[in-house]
Amino acid sequence: MRYGRKVETDGVPNLYAGTKVTPWTPPEPGIDNLGISSVDTFAVPGVGEFTVQFDGYVRVVRSAPTAGEWAPAEVYTNLIEMKMVGESPELGTITVTLNPECLSAGQIRTPFDPYAGEGPAAKACRMAVGAIFDMPKLGMQLVNREPIILTIDDVRTIPPAGAPGKGQIYRMLPLHDRNNLEGEPVAYITSLRFNMGGYLEKSVIKN
Amino acid sequence: MRYGRKVETDGVPNLYAGTKVTPWTPPEPGIDNLGISSVDTFAVPGVGEFTVQFDGYVRVVRSAPTAGEWAPAEVYTNLIEMKMVGESPELGTITVTLNPECLSAGQIRTPFDPYAGEGPAAKACRMAVGAIFDMPKLGMQLVNREPIILTIDDVRTIPPAGAPGKGQIYRMLPLHDRNNLEGEPVAYITSLRFNMGGYLEKSVIKN
Repeated sequence: MRYGRKVETDGVPNLYAGTKVTPWTPPEPGIDNLGISSVDTFAVPGVGEFTVQFDGYVRVVRSAPTAGEWAPAEVYTNLIEMKMVGESPELGTITVTLNPECLSAGQIRTPFDPYAGEGPAAKACRMAVGAIFDMPKLGMQLVNREPIILTIDDVRTIPPAGAPGKGQIYRMLPLHDRNNLEGEPVAYITSLRFNMGGYLEKSVIKN
Repeated sequence: MRYGRKVETDGVPNLYAGTKVTPWTPPEPGIDNLGISSVDTFAVPGVGEFTVQFDGYVRVVRSAPTAGEWAPAEVYTNLIEMKMVGESPELGTITVTLNPECLSAGQIRTPFDPYAGEGPAAKACRMAVGAIFDMPKLGMQLVNREPIILTIDDVRTIPPAGAPGKGQIYRMLPLHDRNNLEGEPVAYITSLRFNMGGYLEKSVIKN
């Protein structure tokens, strides 16, 4: 299941802590190894709602920009790795990784409804993600069958490290038991807010 | 590509104009043949934004409700047919149908953030849709690779005939040339508002 364009990873350098980021400048292709944190709320029908804080990292490959100048440049992205871990008294330890059956894909471009303000126009970042929420205490891995749309507004650097973002979830996004995809949803995400961290040391990433 | 649960259509009756709908009551399974209208805005990079009014019909199959009482009942839905036609001076005649490569699936349930008000709790309706926008003037069929999430709030009858709804699009939803899925998006939907119509006469639906 491909939620957007595939971005080439062959020959694209991994970027870690110390990488220089220049505002208002489309960078060369790279694989960004970034920290991430997220606060997700899960609703389990008949049981309750649980808000969990997650921390971890992502690896995002970026395409060559479609233009050298900031304003017209578009950059395509794939989320190629994710690992976030959270703890919940009720749900136990939850580990979030990418669903290998989905291509999680996105884009950074100037929005059609531009941001107010002087100077160059800030860009909008969006990514459509297929994830696995591993919940061993429940004995289940939960997956989304619609992508989770993650957005970051007011993007002035690529990558938008340090920026807050939001999962565009309207009321509820169904999660299914990975071993019973045709059954009723087991839980729903009702809210998701995240923060992109900065570049990480290579030693933090497992590969 | 399945955006949710498959709903059985075998043996499920088609419902047309004259069908009685009872508020706050989960109905027996049926295939609802309903009118629909929509106002969509398309942004074509470098060209402009175009707002188009569409009219047509949908056929939606509903599952048996999971409970006989309104409050706990969940109903699963598949959009099994759609045809909407719109005219635009710039884009020409546009015909919207379902993408046969996607299962367009949805659900009606009580939201976790209930609606204010007295009496029984209104439900929330959501559907994840894969569509084809046929634009012969451009010589292209455009498809979405992330589902279009259509939502109707404050649902007091099933089906929610006559209710306004919204496409939950955050800034932009990419549309790709069906014959060049791996290319850059050709256009974006930047806004989508719709109205569910009532039951149609059988003669209006082509099959």
